[in-house]
Amino acid sequence: MAAARRVITLTTDFGTSDHYVAAMKGLILGINPDVTIVDVSHEVRPQQVTEGAFLLQAVRPCFPTGTVHVAVVDPGVGTERRALILATPHGLFVGPDNGVLSPALTDSARPRHSRTGTTAVPVPSGCTAIAITERRYLREPISATFHGRDIFAPVAAHLTLGVAPESFGEKVSTVLALPPFRARRRRDGRLSGRVIHIDRFGNLTTDIRAVDIGGGEVTVEIAGLVLRGLSKTYGQVDGLVALIGSSGYLEVALPRGSAAELLDVDVGAPVTVRPLVVRLRRHEASSSADPR
Amino acid sequence: MAAARRVITLTTDFGTSDHYVAAMKGLILGINPDVTIVDVSHEVRPQQVTEGAFLLQAVRPCFPTGTVHVAVVDPGVGTERRALILATPHGLFVGPDNGVLSPALTDSARPRHSRTGTTAVPVPSGCTAIAITERRYLREPISATFHGRDIFAPVAAHLTLGVAPESFGEKVSTVLALPPFRARRRRDGRLSGRVIHIDRFGNLTTDIRAVDIGGGEVTVEIAGLVLRGLSKTYGQVDGLVALIGSSGYLEVALPRGSAAELLDVDVGAPVTVRPLVVRLRRHEASSSADPR
Amino acid sequence: MAAARRVITLTTDFGTSDHYVAAMKGLILGINPDVTIVDVSHEVRPQQVTEGAFLLQAVRPCFPTGTVHVAVVDPGVGTERRALILATPHGLFVGPDNGVLSPALTDSARPRHSRTGTTAVPVPSGCTAIAITERRYLREPISATFHGRDIFAPVAAHLTLGVAPESFGEKVSTVLALPPFRARRRRDGRLSGRVIHIDRFGNLTTDIRAVDIGGGEVTVEIAGLVLRGLSKTYGQVDGLVALIGSSGYLEVALPRGSAAELLDVDVGAPVTVRPLVVRLRRHEASSSADPR
Repeated sequence: MAAARRVITLTTDFGTSDHYVAAMKGLILGINPDVTIVDVSHEVRPQQVTEGAFLLQAVRPCFPTGTVHVAVVDPGVGTERRALILATPHGLFVGPDNGVLSPALTDSARPRHSRTGTTAVPVPSGCTAIAITERRYLREPISATFHGRDIFAPVAAHLTLGVAPESFGEKVSTVLALPPFRARRRRDGRLSGRVIHIDRFGNLTTDIRAVDIGGGEVTVEIAGLVLRGLSKTYGQVDGLVALIGSSGYLEVALPRGSAAELLDVDVGAPVTVRPLVVRLRRHEASSSADPR
Repeated sequence: MAAARRVITLTTDFGTSDHYVAAMKGLILGINPDVTIVDVSHEVRPQQVTEGAFLLQAVRPCFPTGTVHVAVVDPGVGTERRALILATPHGLFVGPDNGVLSPALTDSARPRHSRTGTTAVPVPSGCTAIAITERRYLREPISATFHGRDIFAPVAAHLTLGVAPESFGEKVSTVLALPPFRARRRRDGRLSGRVIHIDRFGNLTTDIRAVDIGGGEVTVEIAGLVLRGLSKTYGQVDGLVALIGSSGYLEVALPRGSAAELLDVDVGAPVTVRPLVVRLRRHEASSSADPR
Repeated sequence: MAAARRVITLTTDFGTSDHYVAAMKGLILGINPDVTIVDVSHEVRPQQVTEGAFLLQAVRPCFPTGTVHVAVVDPGVGTERRALILATPHGLFVGPDNGVLSPALTDSARPRHSRTGTTAVPVPSGCTAIAITERRYLREPISATFHGRDIFAPVAAHLTLGVAPESFGEKVSTVLALPPFRARRRRDGRLSGRVIHIDRFGNLTTDIRAVDIGGGEVTVEIAGLVLRGLSKTYGQVDGLVALIGSSGYLEVALPRGSAAELLDVDVGAPVTVRPLVVRLRRHEASSSADPR
């Protein structure tokens, strides 16, 4: 316990050209020199809370259970929004109470009804949420503009030293959360989703989960095009492919090129998955029994 | 002492797409595998010594006292410029003698009269400056183009092992330094400064310090616009705001946008702060008693 | 030995804006929390195996012998291409069998006849190549698209724990390798090379080695221009210079500017070095005895 080096991850929209991220790391190492700090991304588009939450959700299962995940995408810094610690069975999460920490909660604990924006949800049993107020663990004076350095970094460092979450402030019973990344199933069986992330390769990640698609043959519709069937890998074919990506979501990719550029789509673009069996039953497309 | 892991920070203009930064880190870890290395920035605009010094100054107070700060923005690499160690009460600094290490010195030890460029100043009492010459601590052969790898990285690593600065070469009595980041106060009370850094968000950091502005109401003039009063946070308002940033300098920002793009200004653009009380006394602006 | 912290380097085309690199690091730290991870570059141009190999070759000599180098530039992920461990006297190398690990082999073990593309070569004596198949060391389920996370990261982490390479699968006798970065010497004595890398400064690195140029006076021809003689440093002159860069290869640079932009050349552009003595013997250029 005493000897274990602990891990802190950082997900921010601070970029890497300025001193902001290093300032956070300096604060952390001054409090716990034995911690290992991992950058998830500092290239979240400025103030895009949902993108930060997506990246945090994608990496969370890859880190040891005791990891402290810090996410600072914080358009409301310096206003009345709360600073949170969320202690969960799969890690500690530190950041503003604006939805960016949503991956700390299971999908079932997150709001179901809104497509966008955050909703106050009860803190589920097994989890603890603390509104950070205890100033002896913070950097003084607390600036109005850089809580990453003054609040979140020192709190994360103290957590790795074993300070209990309850020491940092009062428990709260609700937190703001984003809806799960999950497509809607319509009455006719199709899944109605959207692009939630575009990666460096121009691959389009959607909110349509492999588990919702199931094992049958499907078509994927995006930007006016229809792709038949799912590929196993990027390497099999030329041209656009639909496939299940490494995080368990449907992706649309262009091997050796950028699907985002080819299709000229951005985050939020609609994507539809239709089971082929449904189409056949409806006699809509007689040729569709021959996928690809 | 023997067990303490030490921190080395790196500030360079090397970028992150090439192998240069990793080469430095490999050298460091070969000498001291227990050191923690923190990237401040490698995106300093090529050969912009002043920008490197600004970033180093901004992070220095966030790091533990024993930190070794390496800064390599070095247009004169391979020429006669000296390679320095500056040992100070708040850390060890390693880099070329071209002003990039100026944050190692207090403002009062830096030159006062020039606005730009470096001036030779005496090494203040309590500090030691060493011109690095002792080749047994360096990588051989020393290239003419990459002293980051061949000189500064191994010297920093040996410093974290406890090798005394005096072991690396002769003491020198003067070093080149940049003037402090500080605006001029004019006879009429206004502060005449300039933009010294533009961050990822397009926020404009100036060289006008909070301590020079004081507590009274002010106007901020930039790019032909006049902003009345200082905001506390980015989140309060729409439109351009002037506020005291997290490093204690006046910033001009556009919440949810880029002030740099909106105003079309670059580093060096003039910024003026006027106390409102002065304007009233002069009967210049009768409406100015109603600051926003 | 047991207490030694080991180093893993990462060279990929994953970029730093997505979660891919952090996912690899989370996997590694979950297996060996005491390892130090160094990013070489994640900005390899997508799927440019040769560029990844160049960067790996450039950093390899800077790292301790026991380092585990992971390189994932992997256009064939999910296809039949093998996943390799190459154990060599100067380090362990982990990645796809597509040439990106070529710097694990000495130049003499790499193919001589092809200019581009990979060739199957015998694993040299003193080295061991293993095709990774042992699933108990891998992340399950293995995705078809992200072997960096599911195969290469956990294998590298287990190697730093001391697991023998032979434990991960069967020995193989040949691997795919790129030809060495080396220019051709023509019958008339000139060296015929090409640009193999363009760095952040716009400096053009060629495959023409200092050792092949030797000590005599030369001219360097690129993009229709002739540069006479080699400079020692970037700082000496204005205008284009040819010089031996920090990795031992000829570079063409524009101090305080970008040679790549000025010359409008890209990777692959031809570069020729001619010994001046040859030119004189041929009476081609009477003025060439007066270099620069």
